Amino acid sequence: MKIAKVLGTVVSTQKDPSLQGSKFLLVQMIDETGQVLPDYEVAADCVGAGVDEWVLVSRGSAARQPLAQQQRPLDALIVAIIDTVSLSNASIYSKREASR
Amino acid sequence: MKIAKVLGTVVSTQKDPSLQGSKFLLVQMIDETGQVLPDYEVAADCVGAGVDEWVLVSRGSAARQPLAQQQRPLDALIVAIIDTVSLSNASIYSKREASR
Amino acid sequence: MKIAKVLGTVVSTQKDPSLQGSKFLLVQMIDETGQVLPDYEVAADCVGAGVDEWVLVSRGSAARQPLAQQQRPLDALIVAIIDTVSLSNASIYSKREASR
Amino acid sequence: MKIAKVLGTVVSTQKDPSLQGSKFLLVQMIDETGQVLPDYEVAADCVGAGVDEWVLVSRGSAARQPLAQQQRPLDALIVAIIDTVSLSNASIYSKREASR
Amino acid sequence: MKIAKVLGTVVSTQKDPSLQGSKFLLVQMIDETGQVLPDYEVAADCVGAGVDEWVLVSRGSAARQPLAQQQRPLDALIVAIIDTVSLSNASIYSKREASR
Repeated sequence: MKIAKVLGTVVSTQKDPSLQGSKFLLVQMIDETGQVLPDYEVAADCVGAGVDEWVLVSRGSAARQPLAQQQRPLDALIVAIIDTVSLSNASIYSKREASR
Repeated sequence: MKIAKVLGTVVSTQKDPSLQGSKFLLVQMIDETGQVLPDYEVAADCVGAGVDEWVLVSRGSAARQPLAQQQRPLDALIVAIIDTVSLSNASIYSKREASR
Repeated sequence: MKIAKVLGTVVSTQKDPSLQGSKFLLVQMIDETGQVLPDYEVAADCVGAGVDEWVLVSRGSAARQPLAQQQRPLDALIVAIIDTVSLSNASIYSKREASR
Repeated sequence: MKIAKVLGTVVSTQKDPSLQGSKFLLVQMIDETGQVLPDYEVAADCVGAGVDEWVLVSRGSAARQPLAQQQRPLDALIVAIIDTVSLSNASIYSKREASR
Repeated sequence: MKIAKVLGTVVSTQKDPSLQGSKFLLVQMIDETGQVLPDYEVAADCVGAGVDEWVLVSRGSAARQPLAQQQRPLDALIVAIIDTVSLSNASIYSKREASR
């Protein structure tokens, strides 16, 4: 999975019928030092992520594993809201501190 | 999924028999700030997208989830026509304004 | 799918038994303006493509969708010979003109 | 698979229910000469890898092959702890020497 | 598939149980002109490839198509030992000449 930050939303009314009810979030990829990368995904969301939160994004067929996503033409899914990212000698991110 | 803009069409008569009736669109990838990227896909279309429209493209096995696409050797599919792309503090794209 | 141009062939006698009878073509990727990219695939061929022809290449599990390719360890397949690539204001490729 | 080095952990309480009990490790990719690459994955772990160990990471649907990982929305899994990486004329890594 | 050259081996004793008996080879990717690329894979081998041989590597779910590899968490497999790579006007590689 990749670490990403929620930037905003993508809205579509004309779409594959199976996607009715899906919410699409635009997320920006974050590197292993906590910096933003010039890469993004439009991902479906199954955990209720909000703008500026850091999340884990799964890509490929992984995005269709949860029962509610099966048989939808999805290749990216937000699967977790991140609490902390900790390296051996440093903390890169803490949701509690970020939301102060 | 990735945001992309429809550029044109790719036509083929000599192809895998399962692809008869598939329409192939050439789409250019768009980045998270709305700029065009030096990357593209030739994608099948299940939503009736037209030239210059912004769309969502799913890649990989996601492209074969809709019933009509199953068992076709497709790895890219236009799954939605985008109405709006909105960040927390800005609107990147609005179909209504783009089509004026 | 990606647009590619057939460059040549890769021959192997010692291979997974399921690949007996597969023909492997070396194809060079082409970008959305018709220029060659520094990227290639060795792809199986199910449409009888020839050297210098432009083709559509599907990658990933898409390559194993046609009945004859199932259960072969393939991740790239030529699925169509391209007749034309047309943008809204220009023609990038026409097989008829290319073969004159 | 790719060679990677375990850097730390990613913790999440709000996640897809199927991921309860999964441990997510942040791993940094290593190139074929033993240097770190500017690329990483957040991977589930099924072998008990620890910080600074070199591991093999499988990506894509491979991550869901072990029974315990099936139907989880995972696209990266640590599948092995590396003992040695040996080229024809040099040793790039030896776990025994690294842990001295 | 990609063309690659076998560089060496990766050994692991602590790994997913399904991988017992798998041999992992470190292979360096080769481009369409025969030059080495700064990219590699650690791939399982089902054809008995040796150091310095050129091989075809399949990635993704293709790696698990051969019966012996099914349900192993593999995303890369050596599927063929290359005899020749021939372009329309040149030979890039011949196993016979390389092994002299």
